[in-house]
Amino acid sequence: MFLTLALLLLSARLLGELAKRLHQPAVLGELAAGILLGPTVFGRLAPSASQTIFPTSGEEAQVLRGIISLALVLFLLVVGMEVNLAGVRRQSRIALAVGAGGMVVPFGLGFLVAWMAPALLGMSSGSDVMIFALFFATAMSISALPVIAKTLTDINLLSSDLGMVVISAAIFNDLIGWMIFAIILGMMGGSHAAAAPHRETVQVVALTLGFAGAMLTLGRWLLHRILPWIQAYLSWPGGVLSFTLALALFGAAVTEWIGLHAIFGSFLVGVAIGESSHLRERTRAVIEQFISFFFAPIIFASIGLGVDFAANFDLPLVAIALLIACAGKLIGCSAGARLSGMSTRESWVVALGMNSRGAMEILLGTIALRDQVINQKTFVALVVIALVTSMMAGPLMLRVLGRKRARRFTDVLAAKAFVLELAAATKEDAIAELAAALASSAGLDEGLVASAVQERERSMSTAVGNHLAIPHARLANLPAPVIGVGLSRPGLAFDAPDGEPVQVLVLVLTAINDDGDQIDLLADIASTFKPGDACSQALAARSYTEFLAVVKALQGGVGSPSRALPGVKTTIIVNAATRPGNGRGSG
Amino acid sequence: MFLTLALLLLSARLLGELAKRLHQPAVLGELAAGILLGPTVFGRLAPSASQTIFPTSGEEAQVLRGIISLALVLFLLVVGMEVNLAGVRRQSRIALAVGAGGMVVPFGLGFLVAWMAPALLGMSSGSDVMIFALFFATAMSISALPVIAKTLTDINLLSSDLGMVVISAAIFNDLIGWMIFAIILGMMGGSHAAAAPHRETVQVVALTLGFAGAMLTLGRWLLHRILPWIQAYLSWPGGVLSFTLALALFGAAVTEWIGLHAIFGSFLVGVAIGESSHLRERTRAVIEQFISFFFAPIIFASIGLGVDFAANFDLPLVAIALLIACAGKLIGCSAGARLSGMSTRESWVVALGMNSRGAMEILLGTIALRDQVINQKTFVALVVIALVTSMMAGPLMLRVLGRKRARRFTDVLAAKAFVLELAAATKEDAIAELAAALASSAGLDEGLVASAVQERERSMSTAVGNHLAIPHARLANLPAPVIGVGLSRPGLAFDAPDGEPVQVLVLVLTAINDDGDQIDLLADIASTFKPGDACSQALAARSYTEFLAVVKALQGGVGSPSRALPGVKTTIIVNAATRPGNGRGSG
Repeated sequence: MFLTLALLLLSARLLGELAKRLHQPAVLGELAAGILLGPTVFGRLAPSASQTIFPTSGEEAQVLRGIISLALVLFLLVVGMEVNLAGVRRQSRIALAVGAGGMVVPFGLGFLVAWMAPALLGMSSGSDVMIFALFFATAMSISALPVIAKTLTDINLLSSDLGMVVISAAIFNDLIGWMIFAIILGMMGGSHAAAAPHRETVQVVALTLGFAGAMLTLGRWLLHRILPWIQAYLSWPGGVLSFTLALALFGAAVTEWIGLHAIFGSFLVGVAIGESSHLRERTRAVIEQFISFFFAPIIFASIGLGVDFAANFDLPLVAIALLIACAGKLIGCSAGARLSGMSTRESWVVALGMNSRGAMEILLGTIALRDQVINQKTFVALVVIALVTSMMAGPLMLRVLGRKRARRFTDVLAAKAFVLELAAATKEDAIAELAAALASSAGLDEGLVASAVQERERSMSTAVGNHLAIPHARLANLPAPVIGVGLSRPGLAFDAPDGEPVQVLVLVLTAINDDGDQIDLLADIASTFKPGDACSQALAARSYTEFLAVVKALQGGVGSPSRALPGVKTTIIVNAATRPGNGRGSG
Repeated sequence: MFLTLALLLLSARLLGELAKRLHQPAVLGELAAGILLGPTVFGRLAPSASQTIFPTSGEEAQVLRGIISLALVLFLLVVGMEVNLAGVRRQSRIALAVGAGGMVVPFGLGFLVAWMAPALLGMSSGSDVMIFALFFATAMSISALPVIAKTLTDINLLSSDLGMVVISAAIFNDLIGWMIFAIILGMMGGSHAAAAPHRETVQVVALTLGFAGAMLTLGRWLLHRILPWIQAYLSWPGGVLSFTLALALFGAAVTEWIGLHAIFGSFLVGVAIGESSHLRERTRAVIEQFISFFFAPIIFASIGLGVDFAANFDLPLVAIALLIACAGKLIGCSAGARLSGMSTRESWVVALGMNSRGAMEILLGTIALRDQVINQKTFVALVVIALVTSMMAGPLMLRVLGRKRARRFTDVLAAKAFVLELAAATKEDAIAELAAALASSAGLDEGLVASAVQERERSMSTAVGNHLAIPHARLANLPAPVIGVGLSRPGLAFDAPDGEPVQVLVLVLTAINDDGDQIDLLADIASTFKPGDACSQALAARSYTEFLAVVKALQGGVGSPSRALPGVKTTIIVNAATRPGNGRGSG
């Protein structure tokens, strides 16, 4: 069992990292890990070894399924914690229009096609057409808040008004979508929990709406008042941490008792508790990071274990489902945005953002497959929809906007242009030494670089205080920005605003016509080294790798520099994506 | 299943908090929760409801056992991370003497009695006497690093030389004890994992020593070099987090393959990785907090589910085992300490500290019970030993030393002496206002308090900068220190060293002959409000409860103020007890 879990976790995270390196959602790599380890590849190559390590029946398989159920419940807690109802309310008019459009159109389209031609979409004979059509319609209309937030962060749109609309609409969409899904599962009868009594559909719907309503009003109000009490009178941080997790498990137990899937309860607990300002960042980070980096990769990798993706890939089914999903979402959302007064270009950006499905679609499909609402072919189609829509969102949004991807300065930092110990004892010599290192690593003319940087330095010192200086210059015909770093342990007199000697030099070269690169990079460097002890941390490094490790830790878990636009309220950003630990960007 | 987990987690944590409030180890309350929910109490009162919620057989029971196995493996990772080999090496001579004495004497005594009179100690007929005697001897000689570290913190001894010796000896003791236990389990044959090949005892011992040796030398060296690389080139903090957890699972799989229990592998991984300075505090905190506050309470509460503590309580057995455990440990450790040149009093303090067993003994017993090395009666006796030795360590050490328990200022802060909004506009009026509030809440004479504080204030301003002032005075016949807090949002001119107005006033009254109370409290208050934004955080509070919540978060997870004694190396403290998230203090 431990080998199974270890292999799932390690391979999922490695391929997830690879996917992120290629600017794709991490969940893509995690799924790929499962497909490689499951019956699609490893099971085909070595059937007996595969059965030993990843058994499909017997006690170990049961235990693994139990652990994944627990992981799902905890993961939905984190997803719920990312939902910010206050943000939705602020952007309520446009968000409602976009959310409703993005819900109704694909739902209607999906329901119509599934109702008319269920066999085409892979319904097993003998299933209830109504339930199948309802599920398919829901699957078409779901969004994926986490992957949308990550895509927006990547292309530097999260804090803009446009980004706020997309996020708010996605929250609305997800809330309604999961509630409909919960009710569909309830309609199928209480097969989920042995302890759940048999209920009529009407009763399930009433209990679901009642529980959801109570959690989102009374529950929120109560939690906001209970949290400070727990922090004050129980041990810290253990009190709140255990309380939140126990509450998620209780929520799961309640929805199972109602006859719904357990995940819906922990999702609602997440929504209710996540918004409280009394839930401190450190507690939040512990819950999110552990669940996102331990349970979530195991969930997504385990998906590939149960299904043979090659044998169940049905091209016509995939093509039709993908068409319905994209057409419905794009038409619905852009219509909603246009009707609320957005420009055509903005409407398309919003619609493309909303079209991402990511992990949500896959979770929905996984549960539907377990409960036999759909078969493996439809499941594979849903996974393909999730991946394709998530992968195309970012690039297409950038193209429509005519923008480029945001970068961190570490993306253009070269290992060869890192000087661990500057020999120079003066400002001018240090700049010349670092310029020479950078010029040789980038294949530039040393004299040209040095003179451009020195000239800029003479106009005004580039020391920014806190032992940091960022000498910089623009060069003609530079194809891309290049950055070098030099450390000076004794320190250099640099005429800094705080009078302190400079110990960390970051040299930035950009093109003359650089489209804002220089400003972005300087701002990113300055904010990275803002903490008081940032430079002393950097000076402790004894190699380029150690230096990079320190800088990455200083940058935190966020994928790109946060640049809040003036006048935009940024509460939702804190809550939805730049929060520590949310840099994973599956979803 | 979710209801089961939720009930276990919530009741364990609540009773754990209660135990801590009574200055007892949290594990005591967690065990009590399981005893209440299990066959001892709830099962006796409502047998059918108990079977539904906590089934002892069937699929759900299997899944629960699987989740607890996973929890055990992860918990031992955290236990391993707390072991600091460098600290042991620094104190190596005395620590070795104490550790060896505390190992050999109880082991010998335990083995002798168990070998001579196995039936008396509850050995089931038909078991192997050799294995039973070896196990019983190991159980007598184990220590419990986490509970020892917590006890030392509580009584302010952790950073002293005496504390260092106890911690180092306990680490030595635990390392050897777990290795012997692993070998005993291995001797019983590979019943733990289906995939494990059958091995001879000699082979198991050789593989165990080889694996442990490799992990503690090559593994440590390698991990220290790999960690910065992961931080630099994979996403942060997800990369290191997933890597550590995956490694623990791999370690577990390796020891299962050898034929040992899985927990030994994750323990070794924890020792190897925990010592690397490249494992950042934030990553460490996420792993420790989530595991300590989610998995650990579930583990300890679940122990009570399997055993009827009332029916299996065998007084003669408990008495004899407790006698052997305490006599062996106290004699062995104090002899070791005396022989290394410590004074008689110090030797007794060290021996009393080492005598705590806590969670380790219970874990050992749980696994032995599962693997049928011992029966339920012996198991209950081991649990009693663990609890009694842990509970008596702190009070007895204090009595031998003639000291008293360390306090945080929040322990003596009174809700009634909290002024949310001081009406006063000057320093003198504010002190008078706060003094009046404190005097009325503590039943003191208002004029007396005010004049004593004002007089002290006139001699030199008690403003310490950063918007904080700590007016204070000593009063005759004050039975115990009392503290009041007043907030002034407009700020008061206080002649502070940084020239800033004072917004947070903490008024401290102690007795004239206060045995250091005043100094301790002033130091604790100053260090609590040291962060730059501490006062603005406090001012955001809108009630006493919210104020207390902010202060608790500022104090972090540590149970008592850290006061490093001059000249004592404090590395081990960081690693063993005051690290964030380690305030749980089970063990």
